[in-house]
Amino acid sequence: MTAHPAGEAGQRALLPNGLRDVLPPEAAQESLAIKTLLGCFGGYGYQPVKPPLVEFEASLLEGASPKMSTRIFRIMDPVSQRMMGVRADMTMQVARVATTRLAKAPRPLRLSYAGEVLRVLGSQLSPERQFAQVGAELIGSASAAADAEVAVLAAEALGAVGVKNLSLDLMVPPLVPAVLAAATLDPALFGPLRAALDRKDAAEVTALDGRVGETLARLLEASGPVARAFERLSAIDLPPAALQVLDRLRQVVELIKAAVPGLTITVDPVENRGFEYHTGISFSLFARGIRGELGRGGRYLAGAAQEPATGFTLYMDTVLRALPEAEAARTLFLPYGTARDAADRLRAEGWTTLAGLEPVADSAAEAKRLHCTHRLSGDQIVAL
Amino acid sequence: MTAHPAGEAGQRALLPNGLRDVLPPEAAQESLAIKTLLGCFGGYGYQPVKPPLVEFEASLLEGASPKMSTRIFRIMDPVSQRMMGVRADMTMQVARVATTRLAKAPRPLRLSYAGEVLRVLGSQLSPERQFAQVGAELIGSASAAADAEVAVLAAEALGAVGVKNLSLDLMVPPLVPAVLAAATLDPALFGPLRAALDRKDAAEVTALDGRVGETLARLLEASGPVARAFERLSAIDLPPAALQVLDRLRQVVELIKAAVPGLTITVDPVENRGFEYHTGISFSLFARGIRGELGRGGRYLAGAAQEPATGFTLYMDTVLRALPEAEAARTLFLPYGTARDAADRLRAEGWTTLAGLEPVADSAAEAKRLHCTHRLSGDQIVAL
Repeated sequence: MTAHPAGEAGQRALLPNGLRDVLPPEAAQESLAIKTLLGCFGGYGYQPVKPPLVEFEASLLEGASPKMSTRIFRIMDPVSQRMMGVRADMTMQVARVATTRLAKAPRPLRLSYAGEVLRVLGSQLSPERQFAQVGAELIGSASAAADAEVAVLAAEALGAVGVKNLSLDLMVPPLVPAVLAAATLDPALFGPLRAALDRKDAAEVTALDGRVGETLARLLEASGPVARAFERLSAIDLPPAALQVLDRLRQVVELIKAAVPGLTITVDPVENRGFEYHTGISFSLFARGIRGELGRGGRYLAGAAQEPATGFTLYMDTVLRALPEAEAARTLFLPYGTARDAADRLRAEGWTTLAGLEPVADSAAEAKRLHCTHRLSGDQIVAL
Repeated sequence: MTAHPAGEAGQRALLPNGLRDVLPPEAAQESLAIKTLLGCFGGYGYQPVKPPLVEFEASLLEGASPKMSTRIFRIMDPVSQRMMGVRADMTMQVARVATTRLAKAPRPLRLSYAGEVLRVLGSQLSPERQFAQVGAELIGSASAAADAEVAVLAAEALGAVGVKNLSLDLMVPPLVPAVLAAATLDPALFGPLRAALDRKDAAEVTALDGRVGETLARLLEASGPVARAFERLSAIDLPPAALQVLDRLRQVVELIKAAVPGLTITVDPVENRGFEYHTGISFSLFARGIRGELGRGGRYLAGAAQEPATGFTLYMDTVLRALPEAEAARTLFLPYGTARDAADRLRAEGWTTLAGLEPVADSAAEAKRLHCTHRLSGDQIVAL
């Protein structure tokens, strides 16, 4: 074998598909964005928790969708001889913490989190197998104010990190079940109807059952900007349970509009893909022109005691795609031998300083070589 | 089987040994400490990088100590069909990023990082199998100023997060090899001498070889506070290579003392346990009365090109033990129906607000129940 040190090093540096090194200045941008998000959550009283990267498999999958089981990497714990899993989602972990370790903390309980998750496979839409998840959960309140608070917080926090043209897409997973429950319908039709609704296929929906099909088709047509959606929904003859669901949606929309007046809000009354476990108002967040969801959230039941809960999680890979490209920081070159107190003072003033570690002939050239934006010359700051 | 829902839930909530949920207010304290550390590093021009949690096993172990291989969890990558490992240390990852992805970035290159690491087994001294590592690496400078910069940065940053009574313990791993190389010594004695030095067994060292043994025993005795150590070291007759090593140590100590006047500095001239791969001045950081190292660092050669490099890593589990107990934040209860703009203004003023989500009869009692420190009454802030 011939040695090819450079090629070998290149090979070794290759990372598994979907995993990557985040480099400067992007890593700083992500870290600042996470800090800003947690800061917003903190302002509303959401306190951070940090569950571990790995847990026993059984605990990680408890209450999760069956798909989760195919998403997690498994590792054997040599200590307990039990199977552990690397988390692919933090939402369930935080619900676990809330309902077990913090079962006695007063309700409503507001928790936040930020951490890395790992998935066995990426998807076509988001090939990343590791990304940071940042979120907030509000446990122990069934109120409309709680539904609104988390949606408002998600929108405000994304605005604070610099996401523009945000759109909040509201869903009401219990609406279709309420319509179906009120119709005396052959249960064998539930599956095909749900599948046709998921395809937004109004013709097929009507063909499957003329009576409830017409209602469902009209719900499909109501999908869109919130004002038009409510107008169309008002014209549909719905059973009381469905009307109650819509009434809650209206309350929550009013609260959100009052808090974030400029926000684009759409309503998709029949959508429930990925929200099968949600028990009330749910939402996805998008930014115009940005591929993929920035995050999602909604109402669910937490833990063995089935506590009313709502919350959301943001996907930092997508959030970062929605931000303007990271700029390198303004950096000040300090020539070798710069007095310690001068350097301390400049950093205290907010400068990022790069200290020369050896004397150089041309301080300006050295500062440029190091991509500094400024250099110290005597006690003068000179822009480059 | 009888169902014991509560017991079951309790069981499921159990985490594997050495893994834990970090709860409020401790998680907030850790997150603030990491933010502060990265802020300090950033002030000196260290830019964050974020390598992935898992890499191919071969790349993760490249250049690491042989012990590392027993420390990492392995997982099979279904995409590449190759073995991956979960990182147990980030230092090597950052060196990899510096010498491959950032090979063309100008030197010296200053990088920082913060992330979770996972270990197969905890140790008796630190049973945690997951903890955050936060560090800084300075790649491409062999200068004394570089050695000093990283030690000063570590001390300053730990001071900034609130660590008191910090002690910097300096080591010079190349010193003993320089002494041994100059003595025409039976190489079979190297191992036993090193072992005796590691046990600080001066008698055994002298017994193994009278001539070099005496020198080594005197080096052992020189260990201690920096002023006394230098006094004793000056009195030892050392070969030129060893004198050169000590001369560098003196320069670096002078630079550190000038930058952090109050810092306790000790020197251990023969210590090298855990620093076998270090090629120059190395250090451990301790806080008086706190079990375990806060962090460690030192000079090494990075990558295939063997670039001169130095840096340090801080262990957040130990750093947090060195901080005063976390205090709950001051929190302001906003009764249900508090005007949006008033709430926004209070948060902008820095208040953490907890919004009442439903009307309650006794707002003061509700605020107390939620552990708030203050409540809004009309437009007055009332302390509880």
